[in-house]
Amino acid sequence: MDSKELVLQRSNQAKEIYLPNLSADPVIFGFDQNELKVLLLKMNYKKLWFLPGGYVKKDEDLDEAVVRILKERAGVKAISYLEEFGVFGKINRSENYFEDFDDNLFQKQRFITIGYFALYNPSMIDLTVDEFSESCEWIYLSQLSDIEMAMDHHEIVKKALLTLREKISIKPIGLNLLPEKFTLAELQKLYEAILGKNLNRGNFYRKMKNTGILKKLNEQRKGGAHKAPDLYSFNKEIYSKALENGLISW
Amino acid sequence: MDSKELVLQRSNQAKEIYLPNLSADPVIFGFDQNELKVLLLKMNYKKLWFLPGGYVKKDEDLDEAVVRILKERAGVKAISYLEEFGVFGKINRSENYFEDFDDNLFQKQRFITIGYFALYNPSMIDLTVDEFSESCEWIYLSQLSDIEMAMDHHEIVKKALLTLREKISIKPIGLNLLPEKFTLAELQKLYEAILGKNLNRGNFYRKMKNTGILKKLNEQRKGGAHKAPDLYSFNKEIYSKALENGLISW
Repeated sequence: MDSKELVLQRSNQAKEIYLPNLSADPVIFGFDQNELKVLLLKMNYKKLWFLPGGYVKKDEDLDEAVVRILKERAGVKAISYLEEFGVFGKINRSENYFEDFDDNLFQKQRFITIGYFALYNPSMIDLTVDEFSESCEWIYLSQLSDIEMAMDHHEIVKKALLTLREKISIKPIGLNLLPEKFTLAELQKLYEAILGKNLNRGNFYRKMKNTGILKKLNEQRKGGAHKAPDLYSFNKEIYSKALENGLISW
Repeated sequence: MDSKELVLQRSNQAKEIYLPNLSADPVIFGFDQNELKVLLLKMNYKKLWFLPGGYVKKDEDLDEAVVRILKERAGVKAISYLEEFGVFGKINRSENYFEDFDDNLFQKQRFITIGYFALYNPSMIDLTVDEFSESCEWIYLSQLSDIEMAMDHHEIVKKALLTLREKISIKPIGLNLLPEKFTLAELQKLYEAILGKNLNRGNFYRKMKNTGILKKLNEQRKGGAHKAPDLYSFNKEIYSKALENGLISW
């Protein structure tokens, strides 16, 4: 079955199963080689890159839908928490994408899409490819301008990144992204990747230590040319309290 | 026409005009008497309190819809910017509300609703009552537990308030809520109302002055029993830059 026939066949099933006009698009960030990357699919039809999004079943909660969609479209099973960050509701946001099809195609109707983001360690996720896609890959943010993304998916990723930048001032991050033991320099690289700029080392270390979320281990990272740096891990109790109540006290 | 007949009549029109399954609910906060209040409608049918929400037209952008809905349902014309803060998508969130009606009633279908919030000075808004409501009022947050709200609207207001609490650590607020000239004590009352707790005066003043968003005027508030306190206004240029880039520098 070619990619056009498949889209057509799935349209009729979709009308039975899914709510109309509404979709969900997860933006999954990973951290690797001191850079952020994002999980994308390349669809067979038209060969454009997409977020691993999908539709909401008539009989499921919205939160359940997003988790299911990620599993079905990218084989992502590890993710249990996604955070909603924006709704994209311009009338013409997906105009022309399914232009080869009749207007009664399920996928061609107007969709208002809900964006969710999560941060995950890419090594924790085994990617698989669904029937609509020719590949499912982590793409570095620095390479996004080189690929062609469908509809407004570029804008959705951009908004997710802006939200993440705001969040790291008030919420701890790193637990799902860094290894169990890490150096302050590695933590700083993560913040720099998210903020898109270099940070002053002294300020950053002081700020991080003041949050109380770090636990200094009696261990050093060996093997470098320089003095072996101290290893840290997260104090999970304080970390999860800070996730709930925020890092900033008034 | 009684309230039930009206709901029925509007159902048929709604099917023509609006997208199914999707609604928007604005949470408009005001500040008055050192307390936060929220804009609510009391619907004729069933006499429960509601957010001034509504549906999205098939031919309008989502952002336009929210502004239109507020104008139609509460006479609110002044609001041009609302911020999306959450999507409420549980299957059963509006279950039983329209139980007196057939299942083909437009209003009775499953709705996933998108929550928006804004902060406005109540004196800037002339409220009017729409055809479905018997009143349209500002209700103090401290009184919300005394009134009966429909569906999950209590939860929606609560989430809006939590979002606002997070936001004030990273974004300036007050421009639409305080008078043009205000004292630091008045600004502190606003923060205390949002955070739901008393703040240390010295810390608060230092924090606010460090943001740079305040402009000290060569003027005092006269008439109190104590030493006349200095008046401030917002430095609008720095305020709007901070709105965009955040208050926290890394």
